[in-house]
Amino acid sequence: MTHRDRLAAFLDRSITRHTITGIILVNAVTLGLETSDAVMAEVGGLILAIDRICLAVFVLELATKLYALGPRFFRSGWNLFDLAVVAIALAPTTDGLSVLRALRILRVLRVVSVAPSLRRVVEGFLTALPGMASVFLLLSLIFYIGAVIATKLFGDAFHEWFGDLGSSAYTLFQIMTLESWSMGIVRPVMETYPAAWAFFVPFILITTFAVTNLIVGLIVNSMQSAHEEESVAATDAYRDEILTRLAAIEKRLSER
Amino acid sequence: MTHRDRLAAFLDRSITRHTITGIILVNAVTLGLETSDAVMAEVGGLILAIDRICLAVFVLELATKLYALGPRFFRSGWNLFDLAVVAIALAPTTDGLSVLRALRILRVLRVVSVAPSLRRVVEGFLTALPGMASVFLLLSLIFYIGAVIATKLFGDAFHEWFGDLGSSAYTLFQIMTLESWSMGIVRPVMETYPAAWAFFVPFILITTFAVTNLIVGLIVNSMQSAHEEESVAATDAYRDEILTRLAAIEKRLSER
Amino acid sequence: MTHRDRLAAFLDRSITRHTITGIILVNAVTLGLETSDAVMAEVGGLILAIDRICLAVFVLELATKLYALGPRFFRSGWNLFDLAVVAIALAPTTDGLSVLRALRILRVLRVVSVAPSLRRVVEGFLTALPGMASVFLLLSLIFYIGAVIATKLFGDAFHEWFGDLGSSAYTLFQIMTLESWSMGIVRPVMETYPAAWAFFVPFILITTFAVTNLIVGLIVNSMQSAHEEESVAATDAYRDEILTRLAAIEKRLSER
Amino acid sequence: MTHRDRLAAFLDRSITRHTITGIILVNAVTLGLETSDAVMAEVGGLILAIDRICLAVFVLELATKLYALGPRFFRSGWNLFDLAVVAIALAPTTDGLSVLRALRILRVLRVVSVAPSLRRVVEGFLTALPGMASVFLLLSLIFYIGAVIATKLFGDAFHEWFGDLGSSAYTLFQIMTLESWSMGIVRPVMETYPAAWAFFVPFILITTFAVTNLIVGLIVNSMQSAHEEESVAATDAYRDEILTRLAAIEKRLSER
Repeated sequence: MTHRDRLAAFLDRSITRHTITGIILVNAVTLGLETSDAVMAEVGGLILAIDRICLAVFVLELATKLYALGPRFFRSGWNLFDLAVVAIALAPTTDGLSVLRALRILRVLRVVSVAPSLRRVVEGFLTALPGMASVFLLLSLIFYIGAVIATKLFGDAFHEWFGDLGSSAYTLFQIMTLESWSMGIVRPVMETYPAAWAFFVPFILITTFAVTNLIVGLIVNSMQSAHEEESVAATDAYRDEILTRLAAIEKRLSER
Repeated sequence: MTHRDRLAAFLDRSITRHTITGIILVNAVTLGLETSDAVMAEVGGLILAIDRICLAVFVLELATKLYALGPRFFRSGWNLFDLAVVAIALAPTTDGLSVLRALRILRVLRVVSVAPSLRRVVEGFLTALPGMASVFLLLSLIFYIGAVIATKLFGDAFHEWFGDLGSSAYTLFQIMTLESWSMGIVRPVMETYPAAWAFFVPFILITTFAVTNLIVGLIVNSMQSAHEEESVAATDAYRDEILTRLAAIEKRLSER
Repeated sequence: MTHRDRLAAFLDRSITRHTITGIILVNAVTLGLETSDAVMAEVGGLILAIDRICLAVFVLELATKLYALGPRFFRSGWNLFDLAVVAIALAPTTDGLSVLRALRILRVLRVVSVAPSLRRVVEGFLTALPGMASVFLLLSLIFYIGAVIATKLFGDAFHEWFGDLGSSAYTLFQIMTLESWSMGIVRPVMETYPAAWAFFVPFILITTFAVTNLIVGLIVNSMQSAHEEESVAATDAYRDEILTRLAAIEKRLSER
Repeated sequence: MTHRDRLAAFLDRSITRHTITGIILVNAVTLGLETSDAVMAEVGGLILAIDRICLAVFVLELATKLYALGPRFFRSGWNLFDLAVVAIALAPTTDGLSVLRALRILRVLRVVSVAPSLRRVVEGFLTALPGMASVFLLLSLIFYIGAVIATKLFGDAFHEWFGDLGSSAYTLFQIMTLESWSMGIVRPVMETYPAAWAFFVPFILITTFAVTNLIVGLIVNSMQSAHEEESVAATDAYRDEILTRLAAIEKRLSER
């Protein structure tokens, strides 16, 4: 066992992982407290100090892991995720990049990479995505076509909603979620273009049908993999035993 | 059979339970009538008297059950539930605690602990919860992170919606339910921060995807437990019979 | 075959049923045209005449069926449905009962009782209902309790929404459907009672969870009955054959 | 192999199909850029030229395919779809037909008929439709009846929403999607007709229940076909083997 292996084993010990989880949670609290002006006015110095210590621990942990694992470090998506999330905090936070300051809270997501149960949920989500790729592609196509048509037809009269492809795509997304689609968007549009429903109602039917199929696909996939894991193993073992026994009987009969 | 056992058996008899159910329903009606000023002006005294009698019966019933069962009383979650619900009615109802007065109607929920079919539904709901714990934890994490980011980014300009962590969490919950998310919240925000959609649209996609997975998990679990209950027993019995018979044939063949 | 049986057989012949379906559809069109003032001004007399003829045919058909079947007529829910729907049209339509005039269109629902495919869909819906009874009862209970609490807490300040039990139940139904729940109802209420979210957010979570369970139950039930119909017969036949053959082998072995 | 067969084979080669897909995507970009006035002012001539070249390629491809396949061309729904989508672009685009100009983007949908994975998704959607026909018919019936009743009852007072059958059907569709149904439509109507909820709430319950059943049907169907494809083949092979072996054993035993 080399020096590096011992380091890797140390990082993998449950006490180390629990300590890191604890530090992440403490950091989550301080980052939450930072949003309160009253708290910051009173104990702002302490909170910023704790924040810096937590960050230092994370940097140290990642550096150790990088040293211990070497190139293998980059093979795990979770390590890259941790690296990205910690790197955000190290980025320069000038006035123009207040968004980066706000994104430092993403560091709390590290709790997902540390806690196995959360990790499994996220991995479950991610494995569901490839099966949805075709339907997603089709939905994007429908959105692109819908955005072009809406921009051409309604763009001049309703510049705020359908002025360019981006606005149209956003408005169509809003319509797909059914939020204020009629009272907010389609009825006003119909006052200028009375036949506008002939575009929007089919759009709603098609997109909600596509989304429904997405969910149905998710259910069927989950069901199948759950079904397989659970019963297939048992059934296969049983089937093998039946066939083995039948073969034995046949052999015995033919031997005589 | 001790005195206590006989009391417990008496409380468990269906006539006793039906009487209690009847009293709960009468009490539900009087508590409902209390909300009407017109009714209270006319027969308010009668209604309050009935209410007090019902309450007295409940207290008596619980006291008897507590005496009959002894410490076992506290082992059933439903008994604790009954105790809590009746205790609310006994709490002092000064002016400052009008909420407690309103909560007295929760007493009607006792009908759930008395009627077996409702009890089974609620127990079914509760058994579904642990399986959802990980996804719930993840959703809470997403909400916390989203609330911190939204407060930091939009808190100054939109104090009512994103002024502090609580307001932000409430607004994000509203957005997750898709209620007025665009016309009510995101479009106004985008007038100040044109790139705000880059935060809200992914937030909607992620949270609705998580909720969808929650429901898919519920469906898969229900399906599996229904499947198991129903068919596994029959299949197992059949499989055992086949294997037993094959073993018998083999044995017979080898004996000769 | 009696006179009555021959009448019943005549009513059951597909040509009779298709004629009735045709008349229902003609009547549906004329009842639809009645809503247009322009059409009524021009050919109103003709339309009302057709409407009366259709009604006469329905009355004649039902009377014949009633005579042919005798008391058996009342055993079929669909016959009672037809009777009720035709009876509405015969009710006196004075000025005060314009609602009854509007309900005459319900007559078109007879097409469901005549067309077997629609009939099966509706019967499918109805068979799903009993399994949902307990959850419905629980939902009603939650609504009743919610309405009482909301009326007591918010009734004085928001009379239009929570003035009495009926208004509160309607508003809570709106909130359960998530329509304008936050921007329309809860945010205004929170301006007076800042803690109102502590009532409404749990209410939304509980009711949508109950509705989700209702749908999950529907899916599991449909899946099971579909599963059974399809595969159980085949599997049982196969299993019986296996057991028969094994028994035969055993018998043959023991005979020798 | 005739001249025509060689042409058909050439069109079916993957290099040809990839080239066509590429041209469709280039055309999609140019049709998107056409919506931007700024881009058109600068490189409008180039974009229109590319658009015309793409169109020429599509016309040529379809003409070649038509020549190569002859009458067989019309047997594939996808060929008819391609023909319709390209024909829109060739239609005269006078001022009055700006809608046709906007619909030229539908040409991008050709990517679905070319890419097998998207094609399979759309074909999956289409195969789901026939099973939903009865429920769709029932929903249409409910909408027609609802529209007639709403027009008769509320048409005079709320002309914009329920003025004629078309407006009523659109408003009821909006209500079915739950968009602003209460705050936007039913509450204002209830100010004039206080009992209006007795029409709208059942309408919502019935239509959402029907839509839920539609989705449940989709799930059950998908699950069954997935289940069949996957496991039935394996199970059947296994069952056949068991029966064959048992028959062999029996035969052997009876031979002696």
